[in-house]
Amino acid sequence: MIRSLAQRYLPELDAHMRRVVDSMPAAPEFDVMLRYPLGWVNADGSANHQPTGKRIRPILLLLSTEAAGGDWTAALPAAAAVELLHNFSLIHDDIQDDSPTRHGRPTVWTVWGRANAINAGDAMFALSYRALEGLAARMPAEIVLNVYQIFTQTNLELTRGQHLDMRFERQRRVSVEEYLSMISGKSAALVAACAQMGALIGSRDQDTARHFADFGLNLGIAFQIRDDILGIWGDPQVTGKSAATDILARKKSLPVLYGLEQDAELTDLYDQEPFDSAHVERTVQLLNKAGALEYAQATETTYYQRALEALSRAKPIGEAEKGLRLLAETLFQRAY
Amino acid sequence: MIRSLAQRYLPELDAHMRRVVDSMPAAPEFDVMLRYPLGWVNADGSANHQPTGKRIRPILLLLSTEAAGGDWTAALPAAAAVELLHNFSLIHDDIQDDSPTRHGRPTVWTVWGRANAINAGDAMFALSYRALEGLAARMPAEIVLNVYQIFTQTNLELTRGQHLDMRFERQRRVSVEEYLSMISGKSAALVAACAQMGALIGSRDQDTARHFADFGLNLGIAFQIRDDILGIWGDPQVTGKSAATDILARKKSLPVLYGLEQDAELTDLYDQEPFDSAHVERTVQLLNKAGALEYAQATETTYYQRALEALSRAKPIGEAEKGLRLLAETLFQRAY
Repeated sequence: MIRSLAQRYLPELDAHMRRVVDSMPAAPEFDVMLRYPLGWVNADGSANHQPTGKRIRPILLLLSTEAAGGDWTAALPAAAAVELLHNFSLIHDDIQDDSPTRHGRPTVWTVWGRANAINAGDAMFALSYRALEGLAARMPAEIVLNVYQIFTQTNLELTRGQHLDMRFERQRRVSVEEYLSMISGKSAALVAACAQMGALIGSRDQDTARHFADFGLNLGIAFQIRDDILGIWGDPQVTGKSAATDILARKKSLPVLYGLEQDAELTDLYDQEPFDSAHVERTVQLLNKAGALEYAQATETTYYQRALEALSRAKPIGEAEKGLRLLAETLFQRAY
Repeated sequence: MIRSLAQRYLPELDAHMRRVVDSMPAAPEFDVMLRYPLGWVNADGSANHQPTGKRIRPILLLLSTEAAGGDWTAALPAAAAVELLHNFSLIHDDIQDDSPTRHGRPTVWTVWGRANAINAGDAMFALSYRALEGLAARMPAEIVLNVYQIFTQTNLELTRGQHLDMRFERQRRVSVEEYLSMISGKSAALVAACAQMGALIGSRDQDTARHFADFGLNLGIAFQIRDDILGIWGDPQVTGKSAATDILARKKSLPVLYGLEQDAELTDLYDQEPFDSAHVERTVQLLNKAGALEYAQATETTYYQRALEALSRAKPIGEAEKGLRLLAETLFQRAY
C-alpha cells in the first residue's frame, strides 16, 4: 500500500520539483550539478531513470494534508520544498562527513569538488524556498507566511542538530539526553515539519497542525533510533552496508552511548587507536552484554507509541489516516 | 553625510539583527560561530566592539524605503535579512576561495574548520529568512510574500553568479559579456534587491520598486568594476591590499578580460607558470598600453549613469533622495 501511495503522489511531485528547478537561472554545468543529486541526470548530463531516495518526507507531508481534510495537490509546493531541502542537507552533509558515495553513486563533492558542492547545496536551499512560493496560488497569504515560518524554524533546528552532531564526534562523553536533543534537530525536525506543514495546509488550523507536528517529531526520533540499531545489528544483506559500520566509524549512536554509561571496559575500548575489526567485534559483544539492543528497542518503542498517541489526538480522517499509520508501521518495522 | 545616515540607522539595525540571531535555538559554541563574523564577539566568545563591514546594503535598503515614501523602521526586518544574507555568502565564499582572513581577522573556516563553517553559513542563510518574518507585523501579508520572492530570486542569482565566477577561474577565455553576466549575479543582484525590497516596503508599488531595482543593479555593476580597477591600480595605502593583488592571483576581472582581447602577448603571459612579480609588472604595463584602465573607467561610468537615470525614473523623495545620490557618489568616487 505504501507503494500505491507513492504511485499516487510521486509523478506529480516529480513534475512539480522539475518545474521549480527549471525556474533557476540557467548555466549548463550548474544545471547538471542541481539535477544529479535528485537522480534526474548522470554526472555527464545524460538522463537517469534510477530514482535517488524514497521521497518519504514529501509523502508524509501529502498524507498529512489529506488526513487533515485537505486537497493534497494544494500542498505540492510544500512537498517539493521539503524534498529539495532534504537534498540540500545531504549535499552539505556529504562534504562535512567526507562521504564518497550516496545511493550507490559518487557524491556531488566527489564529482565537482567541495567549492562547487557548497554552492550547489546553497542553490538547492534557495530552491526549496522558491518551491514554497507556489502555495500562494491556492491559499490565503497568512497561511503561506505561517508555512514559511515553520520551514525556516526547521532549517535553524537542522543546523543546530548538525552542529551538535559534529561536536559530539570530538567530545569524549555524550549523554543520552544530549543525543536525543541532537537527533531532534538533525533527523526529526524535518519529519515534524512535514506533518505540521501538510496538516496546516489541509486544515488551516494551528492546533491540528501542532498534533501532527508532535506525531512527526516522535516518529522522526523513533526512525533515527531504528537507524542506530540497524547500523550495529542490521543484516548487511538487508541494509546494504557491511556489518556494524557505525561501530567501525565509532559513531556515538544511542546504543553505544547507553553501553558507555554501563561499562567502563567499553569506554576504554572505544578510545583505542587504531580501532580495527577485532575491536568492533569486542564492542558488539560488550554492547550485547550491557543490554544496549534491548535498551534502544525499548526507547524506540516509547517514541513510536508517543507518535501514535499524537496521531490519535490529531484526529486524522479517511484513507490517508490508514496511509499515515501504515507509513509509521513500515518505518518502525524495518528489518534487522 | 553618509556617516550621519549610518548613525541614524545603524544602532537600530544592529539591535534588530541581534534579536534575530538571539532567536536561534542555542548551543554555546555555535552561538559564537554565528556572532563572530558579524563582529559582535571574538573567536573566544568575548565581546568585540570593532564592527565588521560598512553595512552598505542595509543602509541602501532603508534609504530606498524612505525615498519611496515609507517609514524606514518598518523595513528593519528586511535590512537585517540582507546583511545576514551578505554575511552568509562571505562565510561560504571564504571556504571556496581558501581565504584566510577577512576584515583583518581569521575567517570562520580558519577558526573552526570547513565543516563547521559550512554549517554556520547555512544557519546564517536560514537566519536571513527568519529576519524577514518580522515584516508581517507592519505590512499586508501579500507584500511580505512579494519581498520573500525577491529575496529568494536574489539567492538563486547569487549562487548562479558564484558558479560562473568559479568556472571562469578554470576557463581560459572569458568574454566581457560572460563576465558582466557573472557580476550581475554575484555582486549586483543583492544590491538591486536591497533597493527593490526597500522601495516595495516603502511604496507598496511594483513599478516604483522595479525602477529602484534597476538603480541598484547598475550601481552594483559599477561598484564591482570599480573594485576591479582598485584591484590593479589601487593605491596600497588606500585599499589596504598590496599593489595589483588581483593580477598576482590572475583574476579575470574586467580590465584583464579587455586586455586579453586586445593583446596576444598578454594572453600568452597570463598563462605562464610560475607567475611572479616580474610577470605582474609586465602585465600591468601591457594593460596600460592596451588602454584597459580607460576602458574599465568608461564602462563603470556607463553603468553609473544608467543607475542615476533609473533613480530619476524612480522619483525618490525627501532627504533620503539626497542620501541615495550621495551613497552612489561615494561608492563611485572611491580613490585609486
